[in-house]
Amino acid sequence: MAVYTDVSADDLNEFLSRYDIGELRSYKGIAEGVENSNFLVRTSAGNFILTLYEKRVAAGDLPFFLALMEHLAAKGITCPQPVKNKQRGVLGKIAGRPAAIVTFLDGMWIRRPNPGHSAAVGEALARLHLAGKDFLKQRPNSLSLDSWRPLYEQAKDRSDSVRPGLGAEIAKELDALAKTWPRDLPQGVIHADLFPDNVFFLGDKLSGLIDFYFACTDTLSFDVAICLNAWCFEPDHSYNVTKGRALLKAYGNVRPLAAAERAALPMLARGAAMRFLLTRLVDWLAAPDGALVKPKDPLEYFRKLRFHQSVKSVDEYGID
Amino acid sequence: MAVYTDVSADDLNEFLSRYDIGELRSYKGIAEGVENSNFLVRTSAGNFILTLYEKRVAAGDLPFFLALMEHLAAKGITCPQPVKNKQRGVLGKIAGRPAAIVTFLDGMWIRRPNPGHSAAVGEALARLHLAGKDFLKQRPNSLSLDSWRPLYEQAKDRSDSVRPGLGAEIAKELDALAKTWPRDLPQGVIHADLFPDNVFFLGDKLSGLIDFYFACTDTLSFDVAICLNAWCFEPDHSYNVTKGRALLKAYGNVRPLAAAERAALPMLARGAAMRFLLTRLVDWLAAPDGALVKPKDPLEYFRKLRFHQSVKSVDEYGID
Repeated sequence: MAVYTDVSADDLNEFLSRYDIGELRSYKGIAEGVENSNFLVRTSAGNFILTLYEKRVAAGDLPFFLALMEHLAAKGITCPQPVKNKQRGVLGKIAGRPAAIVTFLDGMWIRRPNPGHSAAVGEALARLHLAGKDFLKQRPNSLSLDSWRPLYEQAKDRSDSVRPGLGAEIAKELDALAKTWPRDLPQGVIHADLFPDNVFFLGDKLSGLIDFYFACTDTLSFDVAICLNAWCFEPDHSYNVTKGRALLKAYGNVRPLAAAERAALPMLARGAAMRFLLTRLVDWLAAPDGALVKPKDPLEYFRKLRFHQSVKSVDEYGID
Repeated sequence: MAVYTDVSADDLNEFLSRYDIGELRSYKGIAEGVENSNFLVRTSAGNFILTLYEKRVAAGDLPFFLALMEHLAAKGITCPQPVKNKQRGVLGKIAGRPAAIVTFLDGMWIRRPNPGHSAAVGEALARLHLAGKDFLKQRPNSLSLDSWRPLYEQAKDRSDSVRPGLGAEIAKELDALAKTWPRDLPQGVIHADLFPDNVFFLGDKLSGLIDFYFACTDTLSFDVAICLNAWCFEPDHSYNVTKGRALLKAYGNVRPLAAAERAALPMLARGAAMRFLLTRLVDWLAAPDGALVKPKDPLEYFRKLRFHQSVKSVDEYGID
């Protein structure tokens, strides 16, 4: 639910006058994205999304995100395309915030994904990784291994209020991850946040990927591990191997995983679970009691982490 | 900022199958309305608004609201029109909530209204009052005089935490209102919540009225008094007589105010300020500390009330 910054019609008209996308007909703040303010803008030329980048997104990273969307779209990945203004730029300013207009994508995100959806997302992820191969800009992953301990330090004094013993379990796992984190796997552009709400479908067909604002340069198979966490668990936090198999098979059909990548999967999945456990834990502890907008449950990722820790062989993920 | 209830694509497809409005292309929760959940729904036939009625709206009142919008639209008032399903009904159910699809209205609400906007809203309000004349359904105003004391009772123990002495000032004013409330003025359908965010403009032209979920049968000039409160004060809470004059004149050109209505204006304006002061005060006191979504400031209406109490003659509103 995100409209942190409101925009006046006058300001928006002024902003749009720098573009060739017709006359403003309506705009509405939309309850999507948690980092930025988003508006669905309707002009005489069609529908667009206006995004105002809020403080949590570093302004210096915006050229990376926008150039990446342009690059991927040019390679045939269906994702929002930044609309160029009359000066051929894609970044402007409105209401004191950096802002961009991107194309509107049809499609719905799936609240209850089935194995068919997992397969579609596996295939799309592999295509994204291939399409990103010759993207020249780089952006280190600010939410990778090195960031986890500082996040834990922020949360540690109160983490046991969420679950007794949680702090010690995280500390122990961080040690294990630091020791055995796979560092020599193929690198490239990863989405890093390809959760169900960032993948659109029309009927059973995947129609687009959105929200590239965590995208970065990192281990490609870490992105696969994030998707296994995001798409292949049931509401009771049990791993659904049918969904896992569907995702991994569809991914491998487009970009086969190397032996080292397959072997590293359990460790990567633990790291992915840790990354979301920690950011959720920090957000959870920062939320005021009784806040209307409840932050996401960190313990969901603690339970997923437990599963990954228990895995004895990569076969348990459904890899063939 | 309102999406209290999420909707799955499957549920929405099932819901839409009862309508003849094409195939679902996308839907997004929108940050509009504070009582209900609203989605902008795009189908192959165009754009629509889906509203899920949440608990604060009495299900028994929905036929009144929806029939009123149909009636007004038929009379040439531009407002959302309930879309009929294949059974010719306008009310359905989705995600356990009563729900309706209405037409999408182009236009933007004005964050910083000028006297031209006040005039436009005055004229539109008078047209609405005339158009509602032969509307047969009735709905008593559940937020009129009789409701104010119970609202005050809810808030009174903590009202002085918002402003020292506030409780006593409200109690005194409630006595004054009960004694002198004008009861014999012309009645009819009123919008009862025609704030700037419920009035759309395209350029300088008023393009539509929305959100009829407080509409009811009450004193027509009470609706005028609500609009004076909502449209004719500056951000510093001072009354802008130019805006007031523009609104009253434009209203009177379409529906001349009777002498008794003009004379009652200061009292009606005090009542209108009291109604919003009280609902805001109750919401304010109910909000948890540090809530992300901050409720509206009740003291804005306390200051407006102070102005109305100070008025010595109705001329001060700019009435000619």
